[in-house]
Amino acid sequence: MEVVRPDWVYTASGLKRDVAIAMDDTRIVGILPPERQPRDVVRLPGRLIMPGMVNAHSHAFQRAFRGHVQWSQGEDDFWTWRQAMYGVANSLTPDGIEAISRLAFLEMAESGITHVGEFHYLHHRPGGGRYTDPDELAHRVIRAALDVGIRITLLRVVYGRHSAGKALTAEQGRFGDRSPDEALAAATRLAAHPDPRVSAGIAPHSVRAVPPAWLPELAAWDGVVHAHVAEQPAEVEGCFAEHGCSPLQALDRSGLVTSAFSAVHLTHPSAGDVQRLAEVGASVVACPTTEMDLGDGFLPNDARQKTSVCLGSDSHAAIDLFWEARALELHARALAGRRNVLAPPGERHGLAKRLLHAATSAGSRALGSDAVGLQVGSEADLIAVDLRHVAAVGMPPLEAVAFAANPQWVTDVWTAGQRIVADGRHVARERIIADARDHLLR
Amino acid sequence: MEVVRPDWVYTASGLKRDVAIAMDDTRIVGILPPERQPRDVVRLPGRLIMPGMVNAHSHAFQRAFRGHVQWSQGEDDFWTWRQAMYGVANSLTPDGIEAISRLAFLEMAESGITHVGEFHYLHHRPGGGRYTDPDELAHRVIRAALDVGIRITLLRVVYGRHSAGKALTAEQGRFGDRSPDEALAAATRLAAHPDPRVSAGIAPHSVRAVPPAWLPELAAWDGVVHAHVAEQPAEVEGCFAEHGCSPLQALDRSGLVTSAFSAVHLTHPSAGDVQRLAEVGASVVACPTTEMDLGDGFLPNDARQKTSVCLGSDSHAAIDLFWEARALELHARALAGRRNVLAPPGERHGLAKRLLHAATSAGSRALGSDAVGLQVGSEADLIAVDLRHVAAVGMPPLEAVAFAANPQWVTDVWTAGQRIVADGRHVARERIIADARDHLLR
Repeated sequence: MEVVRPDWVYTASGLKRDVAIAMDDTRIVGILPPERQPRDVVRLPGRLIMPGMVNAHSHAFQRAFRGHVQWSQGEDDFWTWRQAMYGVANSLTPDGIEAISRLAFLEMAESGITHVGEFHYLHHRPGGGRYTDPDELAHRVIRAALDVGIRITLLRVVYGRHSAGKALTAEQGRFGDRSPDEALAAATRLAAHPDPRVSAGIAPHSVRAVPPAWLPELAAWDGVVHAHVAEQPAEVEGCFAEHGCSPLQALDRSGLVTSAFSAVHLTHPSAGDVQRLAEVGASVVACPTTEMDLGDGFLPNDARQKTSVCLGSDSHAAIDLFWEARALELHARALAGRRNVLAPPGERHGLAKRLLHAATSAGSRALGSDAVGLQVGSEADLIAVDLRHVAAVGMPPLEAVAFAANPQWVTDVWTAGQRIVADGRHVARERIIADARDHLLR
Repeated sequence: MEVVRPDWVYTASGLKRDVAIAMDDTRIVGILPPERQPRDVVRLPGRLIMPGMVNAHSHAFQRAFRGHVQWSQGEDDFWTWRQAMYGVANSLTPDGIEAISRLAFLEMAESGITHVGEFHYLHHRPGGGRYTDPDELAHRVIRAALDVGIRITLLRVVYGRHSAGKALTAEQGRFGDRSPDEALAAATRLAAHPDPRVSAGIAPHSVRAVPPAWLPELAAWDGVVHAHVAEQPAEVEGCFAEHGCSPLQALDRSGLVTSAFSAVHLTHPSAGDVQRLAEVGASVVACPTTEMDLGDGFLPNDARQKTSVCLGSDSHAAIDLFWEARALELHARALAGRRNVLAPPGERHGLAKRLLHAATSAGSRALGSDAVGLQVGSEADLIAVDLRHVAAVGMPPLEAVAFAANPQWVTDVWTAGQRIVADGRHVARERIIADARDHLLR
């Protein structure tokens, strides 16, 4: 049992001063006013404690080449980047995948992320040969998350072809399934993982990469479903040519679009897509940094306003969910030509709360969890944000987190009641970095 | 004489390893290979030293209400924000203006900014009464910069009316000049400031706020000229109605658009504006965070590609020039639907260099200085950036600075050879914050 007292606690019922949080090995067991705090309460001056952030879209292995494709070799776009990414995907050994994933999850933990949705598509040996354990690489990624100490929802990707009428290429062999059953069976096995911090979902990669006949079969999955939707114009055009409708409609006709569905990106939605997602209560996962980095574009404002939007760091060009949350609103302003676009009218700290919701509870929901904020009984997944930075001077606390914080402001992180980051450092930082070095692109 | 040896030095001729920098009271006097380094060289392990960053557009007093207008009171746009800003502008005493400016400059210094262009328009008493010294408030702002220890170019704003055919309102009285001569005389006095770290320019606020007849008279100014140009559509429409041309063309016809001119914002340029700026070698000052925050929009890509673009933190919604530099490229990608838009083709670290140029030398140029990078003989305005963060693992050093660094990565800052920030803290941090507290909006 640990009892900590920061200056502020952002609870499910609002911001509180001078309260302490008591947690046991898994859950919050008390939010204590001063008179009920034990004498040995651990004080965290200047800190604000809030729920851990949820990174709803990650390809952990892509951390391996951060910074190495930020220059021009001629014409550069999403597809040339994908070529470079394929090279990295096929060069990594299982040890490399585990080490790089651990590095990515370390950075997530230290920047205040306590739960990751890993959109996992490295399944086999390069070229497509199976490992003895067909879930070998998924287990490597899960082990990396558990070693760091964050929760993981393994979104087991289904990948069946290059594109309409074109079989997998050799460099896509590592991702490919032979049938939807192969993917569903793997997801079922992963969902049975004994550690309560692990869950699983199914992720038809995109309408491009999944044969149409497979889609209705995947709708048999009872649980979370994520898919890349309308990230690039070429994908949308290809879908209209093959399906005669938008990517979201193709998924919807197959029964995949429910309240358990998350549309990742949606930077190029078609008419009716946003409305449909709103109707069924599906989620949208926005990944603003990656969507800029890869030239995808900006999520249209109606999607920001009408759907349950959560956040992902995706390609890990950067891992900073404070910034991704801020971008939800800042990009909306630039697109709309006005201010406070996502703000509930008249509510003093409503916009900051809305952005922090996107970075926390909305992501939990998209990953099939029921985390609804910090309260007695909720999982003790918490972060402490230091507001004693010059940038925060004079700012209300929630606005300081939403509009000024960066990863270096996170000092302490707990998942399931265990403190995995203290004073801004993960307990195993040096080992994890050393293990990853040999596998990084040079 | 101080000699420091970080792991990397980003010199005018490229990135160097294992060299030391020797500086005297003002300038860099040596870039020393290992065999010429003194035994007592100060080592800065893991650090990269580069030129200090230049913040070419600042309204320091606006730091007073950071975080207090990030919520919706109904319809919120640039103009409702301006109303809130006027309230702050008219509530501050000279002591308050000095204290808040010092806080803003402190944050700049700690985040790696060594030179600020202060677009200064608080000249008089609220309502318009003159101070005994007509330059009282300019001197307060200059004193704040010198107290912190950064260079300042006081861009003395000219403000003559509310808008076409409409005199100054009471709440604009604090900004107003009675004639262009009043402004020119003030700028001339300020330019004669004895401290070499101080310079001055003239800044017709905008075509909206300056009577047309004044513009040609301001062209008599021999030096730096900055103006807000095409920040909001309403300003552009008003200019076409009054002048029959775009804001840039109106300034150009008056002789103000030369290589010493900077167009601030340019989020809504008219046909030919970008081409004209490129022709004369003028600068564009982009302020991406503020331009999003205020709903101005995005600088069009042709301006990013064809003109000399530098950066400003403007309203100080945030002060992070690493991020502003990154945004130059990331926004360009989202707008263009491709990658590496500003990158020189085939040059390995060319994009990172281009973005760091925008944050350093391009800003110097816009402020009338000749700083062209780190070399023997250049002013010793330097910053040390710590690359030992998890986010930088595996990244090439220049890409780490351009695509990953944030203000908390800055550990040491020198201006004119004086170390004003050490281990991430300005020597007078606590006093400056304490002095500012009473003047911040609550």
